[in-house]
Amino acid sequence: MSHDPLIDRRELDLQLHALQDAAALCRYPRFAAHGRDTFDAVLDSARALALSHFAPHNRASDEREPRFVDGRVEVIPEVKAALDAFADAGFPALLADEAEGGMQLPYTVALACDALFCGANVSTTGYALLARGVANLLQAHASAEQNARYRTPLLQGRFLGTMCLSEPQAGSSLADIRTRAEPAGDGTYRLTGAKMWISGGEHDLAENIIHLVLARLPDAPPGVKGLSLFIVPRLRVGADGKLGERNDVQLAGVNHKLGQRGIVNTFLKFGERGDCHAELVGEPGQGLAQMFHLMNEARIGVGVGAISLGMAGYRYSLAYARERRQGRHPDQKDPASPPVPIIEHADVRRLLLQQKALVEGALGLAFEAARRVDVLANDPDAGRRRDAGLLLELLTPVIKAWSAEECVRANDLAIQVLGGYGYTREYPVEQYWRDNRLNPIHEGANGIQGLDLLGRKVMMAGGAALSLLRGEITGTAREAAAVPALAAHAAALEAAATRLAEVTAALGAAMARGDVRVALAQASRYLHFTGHVAVAWSWLRQALAAQRAVAASDDERDFLAGKLAACDWFFRQELPTTEHDARLLASLDSRLVDLRTEWL
Amino acid sequence: MSHDPLIDRRELDLQLHALQDAAALCRYPRFAAHGRDTFDAVLDSARALALSHFAPHNRASDEREPRFVDGRVEVIPEVKAALDAFADAGFPALLADEAEGGMQLPYTVALACDALFCGANVSTTGYALLARGVANLLQAHASAEQNARYRTPLLQGRFLGTMCLSEPQAGSSLADIRTRAEPAGDGTYRLTGAKMWISGGEHDLAENIIHLVLARLPDAPPGVKGLSLFIVPRLRVGADGKLGERNDVQLAGVNHKLGQRGIVNTFLKFGERGDCHAELVGEPGQGLAQMFHLMNEARIGVGVGAISLGMAGYRYSLAYARERRQGRHPDQKDPASPPVPIIEHADVRRLLLQQKALVEGALGLAFEAARRVDVLANDPDAGRRRDAGLLLELLTPVIKAWSAEECVRANDLAIQVLGGYGYTREYPVEQYWRDNRLNPIHEGANGIQGLDLLGRKVMMAGGAALSLLRGEITGTAREAAAVPALAAHAAALEAAATRLAEVTAALGAAMARGDVRVALAQASRYLHFTGHVAVAWSWLRQALAAQRAVAASDDERDFLAGKLAACDWFFRQELPTTEHDARLLASLDSRLVDLRTEWL
Repeated sequence: MSHDPLIDRRELDLQLHALQDAAALCRYPRFAAHGRDTFDAVLDSARALALSHFAPHNRASDEREPRFVDGRVEVIPEVKAALDAFADAGFPALLADEAEGGMQLPYTVALACDALFCGANVSTTGYALLARGVANLLQAHASAEQNARYRTPLLQGRFLGTMCLSEPQAGSSLADIRTRAEPAGDGTYRLTGAKMWISGGEHDLAENIIHLVLARLPDAPPGVKGLSLFIVPRLRVGADGKLGERNDVQLAGVNHKLGQRGIVNTFLKFGERGDCHAELVGEPGQGLAQMFHLMNEARIGVGVGAISLGMAGYRYSLAYARERRQGRHPDQKDPASPPVPIIEHADVRRLLLQQKALVEGALGLAFEAARRVDVLANDPDAGRRRDAGLLLELLTPVIKAWSAEECVRANDLAIQVLGGYGYTREYPVEQYWRDNRLNPIHEGANGIQGLDLLGRKVMMAGGAALSLLRGEITGTAREAAAVPALAAHAAALEAAATRLAEVTAALGAAMARGDVRVALAQASRYLHFTGHVAVAWSWLRQALAAQRAVAASDDERDFLAGKLAACDWFFRQELPTTEHDARLLASLDSRLVDLRTEWL
Repeated sequence: MSHDPLIDRRELDLQLHALQDAAALCRYPRFAAHGRDTFDAVLDSARALALSHFAPHNRASDEREPRFVDGRVEVIPEVKAALDAFADAGFPALLADEAEGGMQLPYTVALACDALFCGANVSTTGYALLARGVANLLQAHASAEQNARYRTPLLQGRFLGTMCLSEPQAGSSLADIRTRAEPAGDGTYRLTGAKMWISGGEHDLAENIIHLVLARLPDAPPGVKGLSLFIVPRLRVGADGKLGERNDVQLAGVNHKLGQRGIVNTFLKFGERGDCHAELVGEPGQGLAQMFHLMNEARIGVGVGAISLGMAGYRYSLAYARERRQGRHPDQKDPASPPVPIIEHADVRRLLLQQKALVEGALGLAFEAARRVDVLANDPDAGRRRDAGLLLELLTPVIKAWSAEECVRANDLAIQVLGGYGYTREYPVEQYWRDNRLNPIHEGANGIQGLDLLGRKVMMAGGAALSLLRGEITGTAREAAAVPALAAHAAALEAAATRLAEVTAALGAAMARGDVRVALAQASRYLHFTGHVAVAWSWLRQALAAQRAVAASDDERDFLAGKLAACDWFFRQELPTTEHDARLLASLDSRLVDLRTEWL
């Protein structure tokens, strides 16, 4: 069965243009040279490249994962070929200034490109997106001289990069990072320490690897306030940009993962020989803040990876269900009648529509956030920037954790559509499921996202972020209330949003009176609640756009009808589950806190 | 970290003795030689063997899966060593008569043994349980002469066996089986056809493999009524039991699975040379009925496999959470304070308690069914036999599908407890998750189980099966109502059971008036509803037993307190989700049936 795993054009048109009006971003001077035509051309180019260079080795890079041989990492050659083609097409500099040779595109468009590449091959794309993250961070915080030596080759695709945060004893808890940096007396530093879970930590896919490493200066205070950020190149880079000798960064091991096997995951030792050269980025003690500066995009990126895999599974299982014939309707048991395509069976339709409702709902929310990244960075109006930033802060943990959770679930449903075939490695859906399972774990485990959302994001600025979300919801619901087919959904959404605000207030009051542990004990459920409300909002916006759209063809008409059916499904099957969330959260149940560990 | 993946003794004592009163089965003449002491001795023996011979190669048999080499299958030697030890200890004949050299044990005890072996290594255990299924089926339906030649060596562990139902074009739909059997004129038959998904279809782990094959005689009617059952040995077996030449059964390929890789899964061709000798079992046209005779046990077996893997994941993640230190309480952020074991974090407790609630709840329900298998087969009272049989019919699809679904979910939570480590193959939880994912698919996909439950089981005999379940629930709720700590749960359970009965009546009425497709469209949700009610019943029984028990030690006291905490969790977090099920089912929504496939 031929299979195009990528989000289709109709979907991107709706999300990017009908809903986010991406072309309107071109009113910002930064994007003035662009328009819908250039955006679409970039998307076409990304799609073609994803299909030609990323998708074909998706299975091979799973089966022949990177190997640790004599202190080096061997990666199948298709990965380098893909990354070289990616660089040749200019994608590493998608967001960079034209003056730097970049495309100077909005993040909203970059997100759509990311989704296309991730859907084709999430592992190979991982190398490229890490490099972009490092380049972005350097631009924000490093000196001009550092940018010239490190960022420029990253944008050219000559270098790749890593983010080195976790250590074996410090994963979710960055306060416990131990890696140390000693001043060398010449303005540079010498690092010693070990870093765990470093994706892309060692390979020969590029001329150099730029590690961004969190470490402590000798006089640093304990905890996260004592963390500073350092550039540690695999090969030292001279003032003239020439590559020098190998730095003291040792590959101590590679992790053998359940999925995303194509991107090597390493255990690195810095300064084993006492000679690991490092450069400080910006001011001491700002390491975590610098990292977090880009955390929104990194976490939205995780969400997009999850959504892309969810979409790939949905598309495969849908195509399979149309072709595979098996069984008959329950009121048509005549064995002489021909078997029907399994898409005729109600339970298979459930498995498909549920996937669509989760995946496209999450995608819509990710684009809502992406546009706000562009508004935050470009809008001349301080109030609009503030609002965009606040809403983004709230949506980020939701997009990361909710999408990861629900799109793993979507991939599980895709397997079920294929039955026994879905359980074999001859079909792609089991790999999507395995690959996707990383997303609830990395870039801050989902439990941490719940704490971030409830303990910080909805409480900050007097609850301003949640008020903004409610404002958006009210606006959308008001529009939808005028459309007969959507009026009931509009009312349901407003009721859920009101309930969310009430529950949030109750939890905030509990925290204010010192019941912090109890209030935060069900933070994951709170995230589920918020995620369902936010995705329902996105679905209602998608349904409104579908209602407004004029179909130019049968295909387009079917697409729009599908949007309405999936919105309907989400409102009937999913949104009501938040009533249970609300009751449990409002009960301020202390059982999890009171539980004695010996009872387990 | 040392790890015992197996259900612990306290749990088995509660389930087997306190709840099911297994020793009381010894009032049946068949088990008169047994008592609690012999049951416990068998369980100790099973546990020891599972730990010594099955658990140690669980990872190895995943990493070095069976290979297809020159028409043969190579399996790592540890598998044969385990099966030989299993045979030496007499486990293949656990259920068989003493006169046959068997242990003549109740199925209830066998189920406990199965759970221990599956928890240690579900793939290697699969070979043994398939052989037992074949032996059971022969006992029920084959001639004395066939039993002597085929069953006896199966009981001795000299032969293994397979069930050959599916074909490439006929998985869930057995009506479409095409394999043909031609009379050879001498009372035997010649088979031609292809069978897919045959576990244990080819290997050298035993002297012979006995395939039980569904096929059609030349004059057979279409559909399932035309299916007959045949014995097809890998090596022909003479009248004297001597092994003869190789039969015409060709290994056409092996499937490369996501999990359960240790048990080879094959594509077999019968009669490629026109010389596949087969013997008819019983009467023509009875094939499906004969298979279904044993389907209850096979499907409960799938549930037990799922539960065992869920339990193994729970136990590993629990032990890990006690040891791993990371982070601090949300109201204790001082980085100078030592990190706490992650079991102190509320969200990790949630992940653990949720696993416990799902896994032990499912286990309790499986034992409820198992005891009824023994009552059905042994009770002198026809009414008790009838009731046991009816309840068993209802519980079987629930135990199969609900346990599979929820225990895959439990394994997902175990991965999350371990974070990045859980995502690596250096830790066992990812394998449990992959292994378990087969369970919602095989022995009738979960969607089929939903149709079986709603379309057949709850409607048969005028709804007698559901009435029996309600009767059990009412009895348990009445007892629990008298216990202050459980009274609210008792009321909630009765309310949920009443709602289930109302919804069932509404769905039955819809089917009666011809709305079969609409009524059955949400059969999977109906199964979720029924499963949650049934498992809540089991939890209330477990809680009552814990309330009644007198703790003899601190360890015992903790265990009992844990039972109450997990029961409480299930009633607060899980049972209320059935309100949403009830509303959706009662709405008789036709959207899934009306959906146009072009919209997807």
